[in-house]
Amino acid sequence: MRCEFPALQQPSIFLILLVMIKTEKIKVKTAGNCDIVNITEQVSKAIGQSDITNGTVTLFNVGSTAGITTTEYEPGLVNYDIAAAFEKIAPRNARYEHEKTWHDDNGHSHVRASVLGPSLSVPVIDGQMTLGTWQQIILVDFDTRPRTRTIICQIIGE
Amino acid sequence: MRCEFPALQQPSIFLILLVMIKTEKIKVKTAGNCDIVNITEQVSKAIGQSDITNGTVTLFNVGSTAGITTTEYEPGLVNYDIAAAFEKIAPRNARYEHEKTWHDDNGHSHVRASVLGPSLSVPVIDGQMTLGTWQQIILVDFDTRPRTRTIICQIIGE
Amino acid sequence: MRCEFPALQQPSIFLILLVMIKTEKIKVKTAGNCDIVNITEQVSKAIGQSDITNGTVTLFNVGSTAGITTTEYEPGLVNYDIAAAFEKIAPRNARYEHEKTWHDDNGHSHVRASVLGPSLSVPVIDGQMTLGTWQQIILVDFDTRPRTRTIICQIIGE
Repeated sequence: MRCEFPALQQPSIFLILLVMIKTEKIKVKTAGNCDIVNITEQVSKAIGQSDITNGTVTLFNVGSTAGITTTEYEPGLVNYDIAAAFEKIAPRNARYEHEKTWHDDNGHSHVRASVLGPSLSVPVIDGQMTLGTWQQIILVDFDTRPRTRTIICQIIGE
Repeated sequence: MRCEFPALQQPSIFLILLVMIKTEKIKVKTAGNCDIVNITEQVSKAIGQSDITNGTVTLFNVGSTAGITTTEYEPGLVNYDIAAAFEKIAPRNARYEHEKTWHDDNGHSHVRASVLGPSLSVPVIDGQMTLGTWQQIILVDFDTRPRTRTIICQIIGE
Repeated sequence: MRCEFPALQQPSIFLILLVMIKTEKIKVKTAGNCDIVNITEQVSKAIGQSDITNGTVTLFNVGSTAGITTTEYEPGLVNYDIAAAFEKIAPRNARYEHEKTWHDDNGHSHVRASVLGPSLSVPVIDGQMTLGTWQQIILVDFDTRPRTRTIICQIIGE
């Protein structure tokens, strides 16, 4: 946003780039069970519609059984390799005290989501995220059933 | 913050919402040894006192043996399940070169904190964080003794 | 940045602290294979040159085989202990479907980078990052060969 105003006693013009905040909600359907969804294009679109060309986009998964990170979005990593690592960190069939509390089956989902974390911050320069060529933004859904996820996409910039 | 100023040669009024920055320090006492503290309410309070209703809150743990993430704050996850995952990632009784450097016993604490990470960013909309119903902000203290922790809570928004 | 402007019909002066955005690229050479590089000083220097004294610095690794976090930068953790944890999470010699896709050898590098995450946010107060005394910002390069890395360093503040 550009705005002009006069300095006191001197009618010169200053151009000030004001920092703005734009917030979008991105909705995605997942299959659960370590389903990994590429949300890069939806984030790019939100940035394009925001009129912000320089700043930071913060992505945040609402809920405690999914997380956000980046990866090269190709079938090997997305369908097998990342899931294998989280199976090491919190095996699906281990005993979880969480499941005694609620009599459910997603203790490992919660633990994996806490380790991965729900938030990611990506700089934006000249309207583009500073991702690498083989680096996409992903939601990893650790829950044990299909879910509709809400990811908050908040852009702060000018 | 609202401010009004005239445009050059034209006495109309513009209302501009200016982005502000407010920083608070949150102090918590922990028992160490994977003690997990729910800091959601203290963060909410800091947001309420900031006059910021839309923006991002960044939480940052000062120090290298604790981290910040989210979870469903219930006894099973908080007292057992999350600790079990970090015991897999960096077992307490493994050998750590760090302990040779300092002759201490918290090599696993450092490693776990680096894997979890010290920072978390949460969007704020209409004065409320966009957390899920069963999603709380937690400090996980991996150190081997009770600590008083400082978490920086910085809100950028309008 | 300070700017002055008159209120309508009343020649008083308002001082407004405007939020600004400054972006730098930090380049580092790494040896790959879990090489850990301390980038704290380069981030501090970028903050010093930015004229921003209060705000948040976002660090983001461009690419999908390295990540950013904090640690106490001492030889034990940096040369042995952190690598051992990632060897548990994604062993170098395990089978990775990623390597079938590309006929390369860095499946574990990708998985580790996704678990650690590419971004970190650190508050800045009075021109200084709020790091602990024994807490440094590190790039962990998981790739299997030497790389020149680009880390985006973006400061939003006043």
